[in-house]
Amino acid sequence: MSEAFAAVDVIAAKRDGGRIPDEQIDWVIDAYTRGAVAEEQMAALAMAILLRGMEPSELARWTAAMIASGVRLDLSSVDRPTTDKHSTGGVGDKITLPLAPLVAACGAAVPQLSGRGLGHTGGTLDKLESIPGWRASLTNDEFLAQLRSVGAVVCAAGDELAPADRKLYALRDVTATVESIPLIASSIMSKKIAEGSSALVLDVKVGTGAFMKNVASARSLAETMVSLGTAHGVRTVALLTNMHTPLGRTVGNALEVAESLEVLAGDGPSDVIELTLVLAREMLAGAGLSDVDPADALRDGRAMDVWRRMISAQGGDPAAPLPTARETHVVVAPASGVLSRLDAYAVGVAGWRLGAGRARKEDPVSPGAGVVLLAKPGDSVQAGQPLLELHADDPARFDGALSALEGGYDIGAAPTAQPLIIERIS
Amino acid sequence: MSEAFAAVDVIAAKRDGGRIPDEQIDWVIDAYTRGAVAEEQMAALAMAILLRGMEPSELARWTAAMIASGVRLDLSSVDRPTTDKHSTGGVGDKITLPLAPLVAACGAAVPQLSGRGLGHTGGTLDKLESIPGWRASLTNDEFLAQLRSVGAVVCAAGDELAPADRKLYALRDVTATVESIPLIASSIMSKKIAEGSSALVLDVKVGTGAFMKNVASARSLAETMVSLGTAHGVRTVALLTNMHTPLGRTVGNALEVAESLEVLAGDGPSDVIELTLVLAREMLAGAGLSDVDPADALRDGRAMDVWRRMISAQGGDPAAPLPTARETHVVVAPASGVLSRLDAYAVGVAGWRLGAGRARKEDPVSPGAGVVLLAKPGDSVQAGQPLLELHADDPARFDGALSALEGGYDIGAAPTAQPLIIERIS
Repeated sequence: MSEAFAAVDVIAAKRDGGRIPDEQIDWVIDAYTRGAVAEEQMAALAMAILLRGMEPSELARWTAAMIASGVRLDLSSVDRPTTDKHSTGGVGDKITLPLAPLVAACGAAVPQLSGRGLGHTGGTLDKLESIPGWRASLTNDEFLAQLRSVGAVVCAAGDELAPADRKLYALRDVTATVESIPLIASSIMSKKIAEGSSALVLDVKVGTGAFMKNVASARSLAETMVSLGTAHGVRTVALLTNMHTPLGRTVGNALEVAESLEVLAGDGPSDVIELTLVLAREMLAGAGLSDVDPADALRDGRAMDVWRRMISAQGGDPAAPLPTARETHVVVAPASGVLSRLDAYAVGVAGWRLGAGRARKEDPVSPGAGVVLLAKPGDSVQAGQPLLELHADDPARFDGALSALEGGYDIGAAPTAQPLIIERIS
Repeated sequence: MSEAFAAVDVIAAKRDGGRIPDEQIDWVIDAYTRGAVAEEQMAALAMAILLRGMEPSELARWTAAMIASGVRLDLSSVDRPTTDKHSTGGVGDKITLPLAPLVAACGAAVPQLSGRGLGHTGGTLDKLESIPGWRASLTNDEFLAQLRSVGAVVCAAGDELAPADRKLYALRDVTATVESIPLIASSIMSKKIAEGSSALVLDVKVGTGAFMKNVASARSLAETMVSLGTAHGVRTVALLTNMHTPLGRTVGNALEVAESLEVLAGDGPSDVIELTLVLAREMLAGAGLSDVDPADALRDGRAMDVWRRMISAQGGDPAAPLPTARETHVVVAPASGVLSRLDAYAVGVAGWRLGAGRARKEDPVSPGAGVVLLAKPGDSVQAGQPLLELHADDPARFDGALSALEGGYDIGAAPTAQPLIIERIS
């Protein structure tokens, strides 16, 4: 009944630009999780945090309180070193799919609790759910057993992990309080720290298709998250990577699974292979396995073996044909020249409108929908040559996707080559 | 079902420091009143407004939308010119009680829709309710009939006046978004403009016992409100008046009614008389009755006559004895000298804790509780002489009141005289 603090005092402290005292941070996160701080009070506090910021020590305490709102998994029964990766979200970012089995094939254990897509970036669970039979939900015992036997688990985070974040994330979505570096960093890191991995590699996307549009803001987010991970005893590094154009040649759910299988078979688009290997080496280094070369495990089929066991362990049939969309529509090059730009955000929105993503979290996604990129920036194209192939179950969706793509690509001079890996922060 | 705008877009515009477009202002106030914009969304918007501010034209539109959320009363059937006063709230501020009948006695009609006290400042309705039989709630027809027959009505505002403000005010109270000049100004002015008076005098209090602690912020609020009133065709002026020490010699409900009766009888404390007459002259000037001297109507009993009719019309017995508290406690001067300071906030909190005010809007108030000031700043006192008399029904309340008064007064050198009326803004 009687609360230690009053929510208005906590909100007023941040509103006036001050630091929220430690005990008030602990109280407000706990009381919000219990329902003793109302949604409208947390909304006002979130807006004050967005506009006033947080000091590093204040954010560390806030993140610790978010972790303490639930359980922190104990992975000490896993006999391999644990290491995980988190991406801040990009278009065509299927990297987790080849990466998790690859790193497991190299001797580490990958305990990845993942999410679903909202908006123009896809979600790893949505992609995996396009595999017939595969299920995202595991009990804690199933999760641990699979981590021990297979070495890689990608599944949905349970309700007991950082429940404060679950509530706060939904609230921020409807109150225009998403775009705050302290709130983004504490949301990601509270879940990743609670997950129990000993090492973590953050893939912070920069570009039109990413949440962070420029290097400076991405660097700030990356540095903030690396500090939080380190403070909680998780060996954390971050890479800033390019998201001005989609990764690989597919955007969608089953389409991205198919491309991931190419990579696991030792083939696939060069950018997906490069990023997968760079991230694998970072994850393995975090796990103390720097002397293993993940390229070998792609070449010799060990990564593909782990993939099959990982999918089977969660009820999926790795040999079953993947679903395809009922309709396709081809976008052709309007002129001859070099494809100088293919905008990640435009393609992401097109894929979303084709049915690959969802507008509300209750919406279903279409497993076969998406975009196949038949040319990538730097490729020469002839007028009339197919550039993009749109896939949808309902042809009525093509119009919306086409309008999203308007102005989303240019044909002209060869573009300046942009590095895929922009910066490393540790 | 389908809404014209999305709340997140409106919030984001203000969050990023922009002006909310007119149509979005109209929509968000209407949708909030209907419940289509959630409390947490309005809380985030209110915090963004508090921290980012509002342009004058934006605030004018916001206020117009608040008025349009309900009805604007039509007082054209009243054959006298209408004029009203609003005070931003002070300690011992009983001025409405003598003022409304006084101005009516001078030929104008005073249609005052008033509120209850929350926190350390008392509410006019609470004070009047200490009169046996008096009721605050009137129907619209009763309100108009009394305004025509008596010329003065002080009653509770109905639900149909600025319902958006009613909701928003309650929300701001729990989300630390009260202290925003645009939100305060639009809250006050939407109600006062909807009330239908042709002229309005604003008494903006400045000092420790007021919401505005310094002249600069009080001036800013006053100028903002005068602009809003003028833009809506209400002849509006504001006075900045001193609230470093309580007005008059009583703080409480029945205690302040008794003091108001002294003023209506041509007697009473000089500061209460002065402020009553200054405000009466401003109200009469707004009503086009500048040639009437309200001092005459106090002297010759006409104001008292209107008071009696005003109280009787709302069921009150103007001749009935006023309630008194069961217990009193005297605070004596700790030394001899001049009372150099008697802090309004300290006395306000003491009165509140004695039972004159309420902590939550559901709480009852004690009609007899309060503080009688036996000395005012500038008075010479002897050590041991009574300074303050505390009145409460429950003697257990004295301790809290005494601790509120600690450090609330000084005995020493004569204080520099402070003017009661600081500035006039029109």
